Amino acid sequence: MIFLICTGNEMYTTAERLFPLSRSITGDGTRLTLKILQELLPELKIYGIPSGTRCFDWIVPLEWNITDAYILDASGKKIVDFKQNNLHVMGYSIPIDAIVDYTELNKHLYSLPCQPDAIPYVTSYYSPQWGFCITQHQRDSLRDGKYKVVIKSTLAEGILNYGEIVIPGQSEKEILLSTYICHPSLANDNISGIIMTTYLAKWILHQPRRYTYRILFIPETIGAIVYLSKHHEQMKEKVIAGFVITCCADNGDFSFMPSKGGQSLADNVARHVLKWNTKEFREYSFLERGSDERQYCSPGIDLPVVSIMRSMYRMYPEYHTSLDNLSFISAEAFRESFSIYCKCLNAIEKNNKYRVNCLCEPQLGKRGLFSQISMKNNYLGDSRDLLNVFMYCDGTLDLIEIANQTNLPIERVIKIADILTKAELISVNHY
Amino acid sequence: MIFLICTGNEMYTTAERLFPLSRSITGDGTRLTLKILQELLPELKIYGIPSGTRCFDWIVPLEWNITDAYILDASGKKIVDFKQNNLHVMGYSIPIDAIVDYTELNKHLYSLPCQPDAIPYVTSYYSPQWGFCITQHQRDSLRDGKYKVVIKSTLAEGILNYGEIVIPGQSEKEILLSTYICHPSLANDNISGIIMTTYLAKWILHQPRRYTYRILFIPETIGAIVYLSKHHEQMKEKVIAGFVITCCADNGDFSFMPSKGGQSLADNVARHVLKWNTKEFREYSFLERGSDERQYCSPGIDLPVVSIMRSMYRMYPEYHTSLDNLSFISAEAFRESFSIYCKCLNAIEKNNKYRVNCLCEPQLGKRGLFSQISMKNNYLGDSRDLLNVFMYCDGTLDLIEIANQTNLPIERVIKIADILTKAELISVNHY
Amino acid sequence: MIFLICTGNEMYTTAERLFPLSRSITGDGTRLTLKILQELLPELKIYGIPSGTRCFDWIVPLEWNITDAYILDASGKKIVDFKQNNLHVMGYSIPIDAIVDYTELNKHLYSLPCQPDAIPYVTSYYSPQWGFCITQHQRDSLRDGKYKVVIKSTLAEGILNYGEIVIPGQSEKEILLSTYICHPSLANDNISGIIMTTYLAKWILHQPRRYTYRILFIPETIGAIVYLSKHHEQMKEKVIAGFVITCCADNGDFSFMPSKGGQSLADNVARHVLKWNTKEFREYSFLERGSDERQYCSPGIDLPVVSIMRSMYRMYPEYHTSLDNLSFISAEAFRESFSIYCKCLNAIEKNNKYRVNCLCEPQLGKRGLFSQISMKNNYLGDSRDLLNVFMYCDGTLDLIEIANQTNLPIERVIKIADILTKAELISVNHY
Repeated sequence: MIFLICTGNEMYTTAERLFPLSRSITGDGTRLTLKILQELLPELKIYGIPSGTRCFDWIVPLEWNITDAYILDASGKKIVDFKQNNLHVMGYSIPIDAIVDYTELNKHLYSLPCQPDAIPYVTSYYSPQWGFCITQHQRDSLRDGKYKVVIKSTLAEGILNYGEIVIPGQSEKEILLSTYICHPSLANDNISGIIMTTYLAKWILHQPRRYTYRILFIPETIGAIVYLSKHHEQMKEKVIAGFVITCCADNGDFSFMPSKGGQSLADNVARHVLKWNTKEFREYSFLERGSDERQYCSPGIDLPVVSIMRSMYRMYPEYHTSLDNLSFISAEAFRESFSIYCKCLNAIEKNNKYRVNCLCEPQLGKRGLFSQISMKNNYLGDSRDLLNVFMYCDGTLDLIEIANQTNLPIERVIKIADILTKAELISVNHY
Repeated sequence: MIFLICTGNEMYTTAERLFPLSRSITGDGTRLTLKILQELLPELKIYGIPSGTRCFDWIVPLEWNITDAYILDASGKKIVDFKQNNLHVMGYSIPIDAIVDYTELNKHLYSLPCQPDAIPYVTSYYSPQWGFCITQHQRDSLRDGKYKVVIKSTLAEGILNYGEIVIPGQSEKEILLSTYICHPSLANDNISGIIMTTYLAKWILHQPRRYTYRILFIPETIGAIVYLSKHHEQMKEKVIAGFVITCCADNGDFSFMPSKGGQSLADNVARHVLKWNTKEFREYSFLERGSDERQYCSPGIDLPVVSIMRSMYRMYPEYHTSLDNLSFISAEAFRESFSIYCKCLNAIEKNNKYRVNCLCEPQLGKRGLFSQISMKNNYLGDSRDLLNVFMYCDGTLDLIEIANQTNLPIERVIKIADILTKAELISVNHY
Repeated sequence: MIFLICTGNEMYTTAERLFPLSRSITGDGTRLTLKILQELLPELKIYGIPSGTRCFDWIVPLEWNITDAYILDASGKKIVDFKQNNLHVMGYSIPIDAIVDYTELNKHLYSLPCQPDAIPYVTSYYSPQWGFCITQHQRDSLRDGKYKVVIKSTLAEGILNYGEIVIPGQSEKEILLSTYICHPSLANDNISGIIMTTYLAKWILHQPRRYTYRILFIPETIGAIVYLSKHHEQMKEKVIAGFVITCCADNGDFSFMPSKGGQSLADNVARHVLKWNTKEFREYSFLERGSDERQYCSPGIDLPVVSIMRSMYRMYPEYHTSLDNLSFISAEAFRESFSIYCKCLNAIEKNNKYRVNCLCEPQLGKRGLFSQISMKNNYLGDSRDLLNVFMYCDGTLDLIEIANQTNLPIERVIKIADILTKAELISVNHY
């Protein structure tokens, strides 16, 4: 297996290309993002769901588009400009073209007193409002007087788009990868997730596959709900492990968001891979969840979905501000996170329950798997790990559990299971 | 719900009234105590079981009554007087009227060398003996010579009395409250339990009730055994949670005695309420049990019965001595403990398992349950707790478990379950 | 029960007798060892399995015998002599009689640079080689030149021997004791195990027995595999607890090797007895296993077999060297370990599940099992333990579990169960 068919640099370069687009849960920016992804992944299918479609407790909202937005001061100077940073306009702002005084303007401004240099990311998807987001410094410099506010946006019957690739494997059982495409110019949350999912899909397409992969690029929350409303029965039956891919390219330590139950295959694999391949990682409580595991793990859906992240959403100061930009993420972090995800997928692909074909320990010596001379400083030698793995092939434990039980990394346990299988000492336990 | 229909002061005043009576497992003092309780609780029924009645491994003993008892020294001076403190006579002492010398007297004296100012509480229910209990100081001042000892007691065929109120609810399922009425002038153990149980009964009578309440005022051990011998089959079927109410009015920190299994509804509710409503509390091992949970939790009875106390029996120096008097308990402690008990009963009354009525998260915004503008410093806002509770309404967890899972106090979870139920987003899971 | 029908001294004296014999997995030294054991235990049966017999994945090897071996230097001086220490020859060395130069000799020498005074114990059972084991000091003193090497050994079709005693009890259920007899002059590992097993067998023969005892003296690994290949089905059905007896006479703290599952009766008893009867003991991971539990606990065999040791194999510096000699073990350590094993066997013999015969607590007073006078400093007195044991006689817990639950040593719980049984308050729960 080639872990790194792409370099972190290539991922970073693609991130730079997607970063400037003005995405939201609907609209041209999001559509364009999906089209660019289609260039990279010709297998990607783009779907559209009309405004007004009912999905569980929700209704697909109107489509939002925006071409320009700014504030002029009394002298006609453009003091806030959407074209400079698309975070300047509150997501789903209604159109406006008006002269307002300072007091009125102030009601529609959003800033962060504690991060005076940051433009906050603010949305109001389901309540028609207009607003501008600026730094606290900008806000503090505003004076009494008249201001011209212009938002050239439209809210109209339209389409909510999402992308899907289903990559078939030998089995109908599925692994789910899901990322969200609704954030505008924000890098770690979540250009990083879009890029990571794209390059994982490219990698998966080049691997021999046991499992089928369902890979989703959807608007957060409403997109997951729309998708689940169409596919949840099938997914409940087929998905054996899933990952919400987000916040994976900053330079922070790794974070782990478990599934609701916390004990699924996805949980076990993620914890194991993070334990053996990172300096340290932090496991959060499911109470801190914040992305589409909110839908995937909800009662009655109950999919085994987890997240492996670097700095988790909400937990880093740059989160949902203009500071979460391209300088906050790195090619090196992309590379490391990609490797962790590949190790997880590989572990799931190779995971099995095994039973032994012979009673008592096998005679490894006659198979060349054992040092023939026994001496105190050479107890069992390399064959120790073989015998430990063999010992736990009782038909009920899978390789991840055996790896934890024997305190070995899963890659080594997979290799040993392979050796023992070839020696016909163990077999996959089909039941 | 009005938590405090009575004040701690009223409870304390009633304690003062009951304190002086000479109670035991049978006799006039205990009967009078029950009559006074009947004034406060006209619904209280008083039952009598004749001496000699066989109950499981036990036989109801003879009835014991006492009118006077004293010791005169050689000069005729009354040096010990039952009328000054009913603890001076060993419970169930046989009658005596004799002149004895110092050596003989000494064999019948009980005192506490390590607590020289305290009169110990001593009983001998099932072995006919006589004895006086005095302070160590009194004992040390005795000199050689003759003493006249008089105990005007009777042991005769009679009645063992207990009180019972069954307060019907919508359900036949029951909550058991049990306290013991056999201790003479001892305040925390257990006038406090008698008073607490009485005022809880009064409070319950004024509440809307889902459950039926079985409330018992019984002599400890023999009374519980007598009662269980008549009702245990019914109780095994009906009682979902029970509390032995004792030692609940001193100013010490709260104590908790779990049921034998330690995982019943009563255990879960008690631990939860104590955790959220006390500075700290101490959970004891069931091996330290000492009251009627000894019977309620015994093999084959197996009722889910716990105790919430302040300083637990045996664990405070004043226990079973004349120092456990009215100055050892307080109106404030009554009030606090009463509130804890009410919170427990209320939590049980409102406890249910719920299932969700919609898949995926509900759209709280359209119901006014959600801040419409999303910004980093306002993540989900108040609706976070709602979504957390909703997430665990999987039909298998009850609200106590959800409260622990979501790290919220049960009162808040009950309130949220009510809001979600009214919004038709969850329903009680009847099965 | 007489715990010590033999003294540690007698065990040590027998160890001295067995120590010098040249044992291996086959051959005369091993046969002679079994014959000497037969003197001590006339019930011992000796079995022989021919070379070439297939057992699971293994084949019984040729029989190895050795009469002499030495190295002469160029001057004809005997510089290494098998007759001085049988560790000097690698186990299963092929015969040789040759003049070799220093370089060639060196390829066949084994020594321990970090323990320059120790002769290592080295074997090569399944790969035909010759070798001498010497101290590092000896090796360092060798110089260029010619050496005569002589090993008068034979490898030929023969017999693998093992000893077995089956001591019948009332029940067909069995307790397994297994030790290994294949180590030459090594004291703690494993003359100590041979001696301990022998004297335990003698002790068991003099005890009333509920269970049948299967007691094995076998070559390690191949012997266990040979034996299991003939008896594993019967053993799976009958063995309720087993012990691999080894490394039990040095003066180190106790060690415990659990069974694979770690929760069997043997595990529970061993942990309990070690907890209550040793200053401290160390429980190892099953990953550190190193003796015949490797076979007994293997998948599909799955016997509940543990080891109670002093210093565990591999964990003490003297292990598998000439330093593990008679001065490394002691009569006192034999006595202590013997006592621990007897306590374990006794606990298993007396272990039962009980159910109560009466509901609620029994009236202990009328049976003389209870202090009749109740006073604060005498709460329940001795009867407390009785009532605690009674409380857990729910028909599902065995006495070991009750001992752990009530925090009492198993001997006391057995005694209490006996008292309660005689009083007809509890009965064995046959189901």
